Amino acid sequence: MLSKIKFFFEKKDRFAKLLGFKIVDIQNGYAKVEVQVKDEHLNGADVIHGGFLFSLADYTFAIASNTKNNLSIAINANIMFHRAISGGKIYAIAKEIKDGKNVASYEINIYDEKKNILATFVGTVFRKGVKLV
Amino acid sequence: MLSKIKFFFEKKDRFAKLLGFKIVDIQNGYAKVEVQVKDEHLNGADVIHGGFLFSLADYTFAIASNTKNNLSIAINANIMFHRAISGGKIYAIAKEIKDGKNVASYEINIYDEKKNILATFVGTVFRKGVKLV
Amino acid sequence: MLSKIKFFFEKKDRFAKLLGFKIVDIQNGYAKVEVQVKDEHLNGADVIHGGFLFSLADYTFAIASNTKNNLSIAINANIMFHRAISGGKIYAIAKEIKDGKNVASYEINIYDEKKNILATFVGTVFRKGVKLV
Amino acid sequence: MLSKIKFFFEKKDRFAKLLGFKIVDIQNGYAKVEVQVKDEHLNGADVIHGGFLFSLADYTFAIASNTKNNLSIAINANIMFHRAISGGKIYAIAKEIKDGKNVASYEINIYDEKKNILATFVGTVFRKGVKLV
Repeated sequence: MLSKIKFFFEKKDRFAKLLGFKIVDIQNGYAKVEVQVKDEHLNGADVIHGGFLFSLADYTFAIASNTKNNLSIAINANIMFHRAISGGKIYAIAKEIKDGKNVASYEINIYDEKKNILATFVGTVFRKGVKLV
Repeated sequence: MLSKIKFFFEKKDRFAKLLGFKIVDIQNGYAKVEVQVKDEHLNGADVIHGGFLFSLADYTFAIASNTKNNLSIAINANIMFHRAISGGKIYAIAKEIKDGKNVASYEINIYDEKKNILATFVGTVFRKGVKLV
Repeated sequence: MLSKIKFFFEKKDRFAKLLGFKIVDIQNGYAKVEVQVKDEHLNGADVIHGGFLFSLADYTFAIASNTKNNLSIAINANIMFHRAISGGKIYAIAKEIKDGKNVASYEINIYDEKKNILATFVGTVFRKGVKLV
Repeated sequence: MLSKIKFFFEKKDRFAKLLGFKIVDIQNGYAKVEVQVKDEHLNGADVIHGGFLFSLADYTFAIASNTKNNLSIAINANIMFHRAISGGKIYAIAKEIKDGKNVASYEINIYDEKKNILATFVGTVFRKGVKLV
């Protein structure tokens, strides 16, 4: 089932495709996604755009929270930006903080190639009670 | 000075260019940005990606918080997703909650064409004490 | 029904009683609560404790979100601290951002007697689908 | 110096005293605080008040973030409530996510006696550049 869910996200999430996100691992309540940063992902200060970092974390969050095959919709997210960089390959790791019938919480951290932490994201989903795949 | 700041963001923010964001108003502590949603901005559930909504709010936040021409870096943001839609023109409005010497806070709301609220974003910046333009 | 809900909170919320919170207004999706700050509400820096400000906002949030008489439980809250003060009477106002069947969002602002803004709180509740009173 | 900082919080934070918080460990960028929940800490639904949980996390956050003896003021905090309980002894653990010259981030988790997670708090401080003790 995890490979079906991975395939669902790879095939259907067009925004993730636009931004070049690649799922490198998916497990129950867990996901890892990486991306090669390009010039078009930078902001006016020549560092990775906060929206790009959030999008990477949000995608990783969506995958991890949907691994139970119970359609889960983000209702809230909070992001702290720790360090600004201008390029390279970065990756996000999502882990489950608390599973639940109606709501569940996840934490996602983003790192650069040297394992410096770039951002910390926590978010809550609402479980719709219908299958994803 | 506001027109210089507007020009700075239009010219230099490559991620905003990639996503098609258009600044429609800029005032002291205030900004309005709109965008035409395309298929490539949708997620696997065929609604606008949370990362796209966050990016729109974050860009509007960056513009409003930099209107004092004191380089301001986002340190934290929180977003609540209220309603999921699949297309059309949407816009974000940023207003200042609290100005400050070192830190300042802003609220950004995103709406669809019928003025339905889609998301609420609050964020805090750190003021670097250097000029933007 | 609003007076029953007001009475429920006044009678049953023991923590609000301990801290001296007084409900001064309750309407559909709206509440106003005030409190006289005492020395025992201060932190080590001699200003109002962040936990005290959060508690005031959280109580106002609970009242406003339960005015539909649909038991509503906080799942997430975010607070930004704008200004530190050492005493006086302060008050919080909660307003509804988005009502919903399963989840709903509110914004609460805290002010001092001169209407200076002290803190901004946004929060999301889960609606349990059972009556409060 | 850590024992001086511990003493400072124990002696000067009156709100922590009112609520019965006890510092059980303090290290560089780390703190653990526990409390015996009483009836006066409950809300109208007979569970621990969200404001009480936040206050416990916020106090633990203040201690951990001030262990560098650089006065640190909370500018933002986000809390997710995972599980509601009605009493017993609970504790909070703060760990450093990212240290920094001007801003720094911490994560605080609250647990009951059986190590069930009750809440997750993330927060950011601004470093004032003056000594605490």
